[in-house]
Amino acid sequence: MNNKDKNNLPKDHFLYKIFNPDSITVFGANNNLLTTMGSMQLRNIIAGGFKGRIYPVHPRLSEVQGYKAYKSVLDLPETPDLAFLILPPMVIPEVMRECGEKGIKRLIITSGGFREIGEDGVELSQKVTQIADTYDMRFVGPNCLGIYNGWYDPEVQDTYINTMWIYEIPERGNISIASQSGTIACHIFWHCQDWGVKVGKSLSIGNELNIDILDYLEYFRRDPQTQVIGLYLEEIKRGREFIELAKRITPEKPIVAIYAGGTEAAERSIKSHTGAMGGNQKIYDAAFKETRIISTTSIKDFLYYLRTLSFAQENKLFMKGEKIGIITDSGGSGSMMTKTTEQLGLKVPRFSEKLQSTIREKIPYTASALNPIDVTFDTNFINLFKTFPKILMESGEVDAIIVYGVFDFDDVLKTMEESGMEIDDEMRQIGDMIERAVFKPMKRLMKKYSLPVFYVGPMPYRFEWYQKFISHEIPVFDMWDAPTKCLKILYDYSQFRGTFK
Amino acid sequence: MNNKDKNNLPKDHFLYKIFNPDSITVFGANNNLLTTMGSMQLRNIIAGGFKGRIYPVHPRLSEVQGYKAYKSVLDLPETPDLAFLILPPMVIPEVMRECGEKGIKRLIITSGGFREIGEDGVELSQKVTQIADTYDMRFVGPNCLGIYNGWYDPEVQDTYINTMWIYEIPERGNISIASQSGTIACHIFWHCQDWGVKVGKSLSIGNELNIDILDYLEYFRRDPQTQVIGLYLEEIKRGREFIELAKRITPEKPIVAIYAGGTEAAERSIKSHTGAMGGNQKIYDAAFKETRIISTTSIKDFLYYLRTLSFAQENKLFMKGEKIGIITDSGGSGSMMTKTTEQLGLKVPRFSEKLQSTIREKIPYTASALNPIDVTFDTNFINLFKTFPKILMESGEVDAIIVYGVFDFDDVLKTMEESGMEIDDEMRQIGDMIERAVFKPMKRLMKKYSLPVFYVGPMPYRFEWYQKFISHEIPVFDMWDAPTKCLKILYDYSQFRGTFK
Repeated sequence: MNNKDKNNLPKDHFLYKIFNPDSITVFGANNNLLTTMGSMQLRNIIAGGFKGRIYPVHPRLSEVQGYKAYKSVLDLPETPDLAFLILPPMVIPEVMRECGEKGIKRLIITSGGFREIGEDGVELSQKVTQIADTYDMRFVGPNCLGIYNGWYDPEVQDTYINTMWIYEIPERGNISIASQSGTIACHIFWHCQDWGVKVGKSLSIGNELNIDILDYLEYFRRDPQTQVIGLYLEEIKRGREFIELAKRITPEKPIVAIYAGGTEAAERSIKSHTGAMGGNQKIYDAAFKETRIISTTSIKDFLYYLRTLSFAQENKLFMKGEKIGIITDSGGSGSMMTKTTEQLGLKVPRFSEKLQSTIREKIPYTASALNPIDVTFDTNFINLFKTFPKILMESGEVDAIIVYGVFDFDDVLKTMEESGMEIDDEMRQIGDMIERAVFKPMKRLMKKYSLPVFYVGPMPYRFEWYQKFISHEIPVFDMWDAPTKCLKILYDYSQFRGTFK
Repeated sequence: MNNKDKNNLPKDHFLYKIFNPDSITVFGANNNLLTTMGSMQLRNIIAGGFKGRIYPVHPRLSEVQGYKAYKSVLDLPETPDLAFLILPPMVIPEVMRECGEKGIKRLIITSGGFREIGEDGVELSQKVTQIADTYDMRFVGPNCLGIYNGWYDPEVQDTYINTMWIYEIPERGNISIASQSGTIACHIFWHCQDWGVKVGKSLSIGNELNIDILDYLEYFRRDPQTQVIGLYLEEIKRGREFIELAKRITPEKPIVAIYAGGTEAAERSIKSHTGAMGGNQKIYDAAFKETRIISTTSIKDFLYYLRTLSFAQENKLFMKGEKIGIITDSGGSGSMMTKTTEQLGLKVPRFSEKLQSTIREKIPYTASALNPIDVTFDTNFINLFKTFPKILMESGEVDAIIVYGVFDFDDVLKTMEESGMEIDDEMRQIGDMIERAVFKPMKRLMKKYSLPVFYVGPMPYRFEWYQKFISHEIPVFDMWDAPTKCLKILYDYSQFRGTFK
């Protein structure tokens, strides 16, 4: 985020202070992290390095998690920017009224027990809405986990505010998520960490009694910290307005959405989850098509698409066409990716004779230079990771490249050493050499040619070398299913953005 | 494997001694593991605890990786069961002749440079075929990585023979793979380890110049160590016979296949990979349909389907119908799985009033008992993992169950402790209690009712609790896309096997 962006933060939007409170009061937390969800949530707020004031309110305790506790919100020494309520639903109206009397204007109500449980809940919902109107309050939820904002302090990398109960958070980035399910808002965080899916904001928005998906979308539209948007939807209340707003957003910021309704039992499930009504799949499909929202029913694809578009937005790296070059040290994965690329409607063109002969000079005679380039067994990883991609980039014959062959070189060397082989310094430096010769230069080349290069290998993300690619912000994949699907998504979005020649 | 199985090993099949050699001679290995692929392959044979004799043949070295080396195969003190050749293709005929003179009958030829490189290679192929015929030799390959056999010593768990260059191997089990690509034969091993995909044999079969996919399939058919078969195909040479054999196998042993050809560039890719001709996708689709082979183009689905069927075969645990019960502590993942279950053609039936009221007694009033059962936030993991699944099993209203909510309890407690919470012994024992109260009893119940229960959570497999499920042979998933797809595969196969009431 540059200085210009910093000045463009939507500070006048009513959500700003919810995402960036200077002071917060918490109802429903105690000192037992295990059995009280709210305690874990307060713990997470503290763990994020919250630099403002925290005021726990508790009827009996004088101290909660190291903070002085107050018997009533009315006793607080100031009016906090935000109240966070994790209480039995029946006491919510009373507590809200007190918050209103104190002058608090922003709340997060995590409690369930509203319309999703039926008639009693509907009545409670009405009451809560009325109180909010009386005191001119806006609130997230109810029936939610609240918010994660990795940009809480833009100046300090590892600070954040996280009111959800999942205690791990991803590295912050340009992805913002609004989810009608807490699961999708925060259970994804472990995989985001492992895969390098840089989520900067993630919101569990619950029943949308007061603030709805359009409000969050409008905030994301204006927010320079948001460049890619992920949505988990069980219903859209203001359909026509949603479409109009999404149409304004997608040319600038791609949206990836999961719609969880549309089948009989799924409707039953979401009715009991958030009380939402869902709706016919065809209506949603039509809305997604009209707005150019990218939709999926797979949580893994959801994360991969967000990661792909995040990378593209961050580096202004869009595809200029549909031609994919594949470079591999393994025939099988190369063939499989070739097939899925074509099945997805992209091209894997046979290279020109000139390009083939350039490549052929550098590969074993048993290898292939047609596209895919199959180098077969070859320990020249600089060729595989840089020389060949660079040749393809310069040729103008491809618009994106997939490179298969990412191993954990340290793990390979360790295995060899344990088997009695002497590892000399030169070998030990293979890793360093790749780090120096590949990561930064390749990133530069990708930008120069506006041509993404995806790296792929067979090892799980837990291996350190995958994390090295990720820390250098180079797209890497732990297996060969996802890269072609991601290129298809990027191609479609690039075409829509008008980046084609 | 029981005693009966042990006596039924296909010892009279010509492949038996290739998978279970007592002595082996290796051409093309030296002491440099990094630059010579064959050296790494010999290293892997040694690392597997090969208990027979190993004879490296090398023109100059007197010792290779700790074994006495011989200048010529003719100098060996015995006739080895198997010769393993990793040599430049042009010297293969001469070495083969010497092997023939020595009386060796089984070979693995890993070298590339045969028909896949064009005319020269075709001539070489003919020569090699002729020599094999002259000496009555059978060989795997060429252009392959050879074999992994985890059952090399059935009495000792962690012994194996592995001639491929990937140095990690999965825990052995009832899955056998034959692959026309070395990648699919061994690059999958890391994920197999992490996910608990128990591969007992994996074969990289290359160009099939002498032994083809039908031979391997016939061996697998007779092999009691094989209960599930995975295939990676770029071509099938004897189409009609393949179909007849597969039709005999699938009612007893399910087959999952990847076909990599069928599109224009994919055909070009596989032509340069193994020299195969591939063929029209529709022909393959028809063959898969007729033989009931389960096909996919996704490597992850391939591994998941194999794992699912392996579990079903091992425990004789097939589905009796199409009704899925979903139990979750997270609404979003529950809704998403409900939707994909229905989209795949299975049912998520609303529970009877009686069953609902039984469940409702045990869940918070904000929770749902309809199906999915959404317990919302609840730290009673015994309910989630055992009590509810058991109630559903006893009800007779479902044929399979998905349980969402697998966390790493040790990681959760560690986080709490680091945040200053006192962890008492009772809490520390949550993990032990789940181990005792869930794993074995649930496995027993699954078998009793012939009703699979799949456990799902949001954390990657690297977390220890996922590995605990795996080590207890309980199906567990690191996210919520795959379980419904796997149930669909299991349902289809169960129906085909005639396990329905």
